[in-house]
Amino acid sequence: MSEQQADLGVLGMGTMGANLALNFADNGGFTVALGNRTVEKAYGIRDSNPALAERLVPADSIEHFISTLKSPRVVVIMVNAGKPVDEQIDLVLPHLAPGDILIDAGNADFNDTVRRERAIKDTGIHFVGMGVSGGEEGARHGPSIMVGGDQAVWQRLKPLLEPISAKFDASPCVDWLGTDGAGHFVKTIHNGIEYADMQMIAEIYGVLRDGIGLSAGEIGDIFSDWNTRGLQSYLVEITAVTLREKDPETGKPLVDVIVDEAGQKGTGRWSVIEAQKLGVGATTLEAAVSARGISSRRAERAEAEKLFGDIETARAEFHGDHDGLAELEAALETAKIIAYAQGYAVMAEASREFGWNLPLGGIARIWRAGCIIRSRFLDDITQAYEAGEVVNLLQSPHFASRVREGQASLRRVVAKAALAGLPIPALSAALAYFDDYRHARGTTNLTQAQRDLFGAHTFRRLDREGVFHHKWPQV
Amino acid sequence: MSEQQADLGVLGMGTMGANLALNFADNGGFTVALGNRTVEKAYGIRDSNPALAERLVPADSIEHFISTLKSPRVVVIMVNAGKPVDEQIDLVLPHLAPGDILIDAGNADFNDTVRRERAIKDTGIHFVGMGVSGGEEGARHGPSIMVGGDQAVWQRLKPLLEPISAKFDASPCVDWLGTDGAGHFVKTIHNGIEYADMQMIAEIYGVLRDGIGLSAGEIGDIFSDWNTRGLQSYLVEITAVTLREKDPETGKPLVDVIVDEAGQKGTGRWSVIEAQKLGVGATTLEAAVSARGISSRRAERAEAEKLFGDIETARAEFHGDHDGLAELEAALETAKIIAYAQGYAVMAEASREFGWNLPLGGIARIWRAGCIIRSRFLDDITQAYEAGEVVNLLQSPHFASRVREGQASLRRVVAKAALAGLPIPALSAALAYFDDYRHARGTTNLTQAQRDLFGAHTFRRLDREGVFHHKWPQV
Repeated sequence: MSEQQADLGVLGMGTMGANLALNFADNGGFTVALGNRTVEKAYGIRDSNPALAERLVPADSIEHFISTLKSPRVVVIMVNAGKPVDEQIDLVLPHLAPGDILIDAGNADFNDTVRRERAIKDTGIHFVGMGVSGGEEGARHGPSIMVGGDQAVWQRLKPLLEPISAKFDASPCVDWLGTDGAGHFVKTIHNGIEYADMQMIAEIYGVLRDGIGLSAGEIGDIFSDWNTRGLQSYLVEITAVTLREKDPETGKPLVDVIVDEAGQKGTGRWSVIEAQKLGVGATTLEAAVSARGISSRRAERAEAEKLFGDIETARAEFHGDHDGLAELEAALETAKIIAYAQGYAVMAEASREFGWNLPLGGIARIWRAGCIIRSRFLDDITQAYEAGEVVNLLQSPHFASRVREGQASLRRVVAKAALAGLPIPALSAALAYFDDYRHARGTTNLTQAQRDLFGAHTFRRLDREGVFHHKWPQV
Repeated sequence: MSEQQADLGVLGMGTMGANLALNFADNGGFTVALGNRTVEKAYGIRDSNPALAERLVPADSIEHFISTLKSPRVVVIMVNAGKPVDEQIDLVLPHLAPGDILIDAGNADFNDTVRRERAIKDTGIHFVGMGVSGGEEGARHGPSIMVGGDQAVWQRLKPLLEPISAKFDASPCVDWLGTDGAGHFVKTIHNGIEYADMQMIAEIYGVLRDGIGLSAGEIGDIFSDWNTRGLQSYLVEITAVTLREKDPETGKPLVDVIVDEAGQKGTGRWSVIEAQKLGVGATTLEAAVSARGISSRRAERAEAEKLFGDIETARAEFHGDHDGLAELEAALETAKIIAYAQGYAVMAEASREFGWNLPLGGIARIWRAGCIIRSRFLDDITQAYEAGEVVNLLQSPHFASRVREGQASLRRVVAKAALAGLPIPALSAALAYFDDYRHARGTTNLTQAQRDLFGAHTFRRLDREGVFHHKWPQV
């Protein structure tokens, strides 16, 4: 192949990178250079995709990779977050020229993206931090793509990214969200919301399994039914699929032989750390990430069950009839609204803090398809933002009305699970947040009094302006 | 005064620094150099403490400050965390010699302490990160002191610090906890636990106020009664004091005119960020820090009350008779045990991660007096660690027994508050954690199935070793 014919190059031929490259070639019709440390892997990807082979250009070296690219060049790095990204940047940067675009499409910590963008800025090469959601399938056939960086660069990337992105009613699920780290930040919060959504589903699964005593298959049928209404989403759909799946070896439901131990590194953790740094209460995301941490201490939990397996709890009052299931469905839907409201509150605060002017409605728009949390629900969020200014999703007319309707169910489920000893960390965090949030008068007046007593931290008064310190009795 | 007569010097004459200097002079009998950017402040502190004046040496300049110190020198920096500490280090470091000891006694982020210790190490000057708890009064009359750094340096500091520390049954509340950032890390977790403890007290206050309808004074009497039993602690004591205090201006209970908006920067936030980084579920600390964040959005909460103030909730079933109050007392005590167990689990994991070999029982020992969370309860923790190896406080015989006894009360309080619409984020987080922790079989088997379906993340099986990926049906 003659030189400078590739429209772009992808560095990193892991599953995500390879699938993204195939997507560019297949759905974009672009010619794509394939770069990888082990050159054979790049050739292998071309050879195992004969229909696309003429648009796939395996590179023998970084020099070769660069020589195949049209100028100005577009290079997409897709490797594991952290040091590997810096290594790829160091590898490719000396070969690029002003005007070229270097994209990190992995799950970066947005703080790293901000740092990298700053470090490269003066070279005239454009650095773009880009969040890509949708897993392997999404990368191959249409992911949701969250783009950060210079807005002018986005105009150049748009024709490359729109063809490969997911579509919702023909609307491409890709957009520019803001400068420097905006794309990766939003991807991080996406994943935090994903953690919360998955955790709440797992908690309701626990109630159905341990509180009502249903089999995995029966629970799968329930989620399948729920997937026809307000909860309709990819995650609820795959919940039904995974619960109904049989283990080919034992014939049992496959979930019943899977170990209950989940990892929680990376984006989920970052999402709650950033929420904390911003001072936004993202308690359902925190509960979800923490629950994975607790799950990973499996041996310790087994010891704890020996100590506390026989404690006095109330009989589970959950039941699997229409009313009982409708209550669980409404509880899950209400808690889900609260979780998404928390995630959106984090993004709203980050937008102010980092001067991004994030298009919150636009974010919901590009999450409607392609990504793991894709759902009809995200179209509702899109519409809520299109309908007018939204201080908090919970205060938008549409969601306020749904929460008013569903909150009593969430209360009853939380109360019954608490009495029955069923763990519902994210559902109860959602309810507690809602009750905290809807009280004009809270209880931290006591906290402020205590802080003034022991640390002279001062307080404000309800009846007049100013900052006050009281001379409390000696303790 | 002749040169080189001061036993140590304190840099930073804010309230905490001045009080610490006075404590060294008063309870230690040491001669203390007083350094401050505004020199007059140092003189003012000497002049307003005539009884100690001959042991207080205000410094006119950094050169003068240094010249007054005996060699090898001991310099204590007590300024606001962050940049001010680096500025003080830069100011004093050029004047120090190998063998001198430079102490940061403020609330540092332990990551900064590790960084500073490394940066200084090669000079032969010893850097010590030291957590000091107890507020203004503690600093003046006896704080709890958490020392990090080289163990050999601790032997030199011990005679300086033991006389000024708090005492519990004549045992000084100061100890060396580990190398580099260990002291500041433990202080950070101390503060996270403090946040959780205060938040739980505030939640129970909310139930007594809004669920039962008691006045601040009545609630103060209840906390005062609780302070005679298992909950006996400084925080419960000052809860009673603050609730009973009258506003001199209006005659109303003072807490009733204080704004319910609390800050949450600094150590509280750091504690939950570090817990997240370590993958330990410190959900009560998170709930507490987040609750302060929510409290600070007061205007938004007022708007939310307009939308949700009239929603359907159950009538609060709390009552203020003996049984009702005993239930709340047991719930608070049980949740408190869980919160401390979470804080201790974070320290245990940090000890492994950073190679500190933290003396967990010793930490409880030095928290028994002087610090904000001082209590009889910390003596119970001390004894639990002295009794044998502790995997988790919840599994120690003493606390396992107390939790078994109290958990039903915590359940009922959480359930009733959930139904009644009273916000209890930390109490419900405690219960959910306990229920999660005591289940050998959790629900993240579903999570792992989902992750394997959409991301080929693989899973483990209950029935045999290995890592597996399943070919799930296409969705």
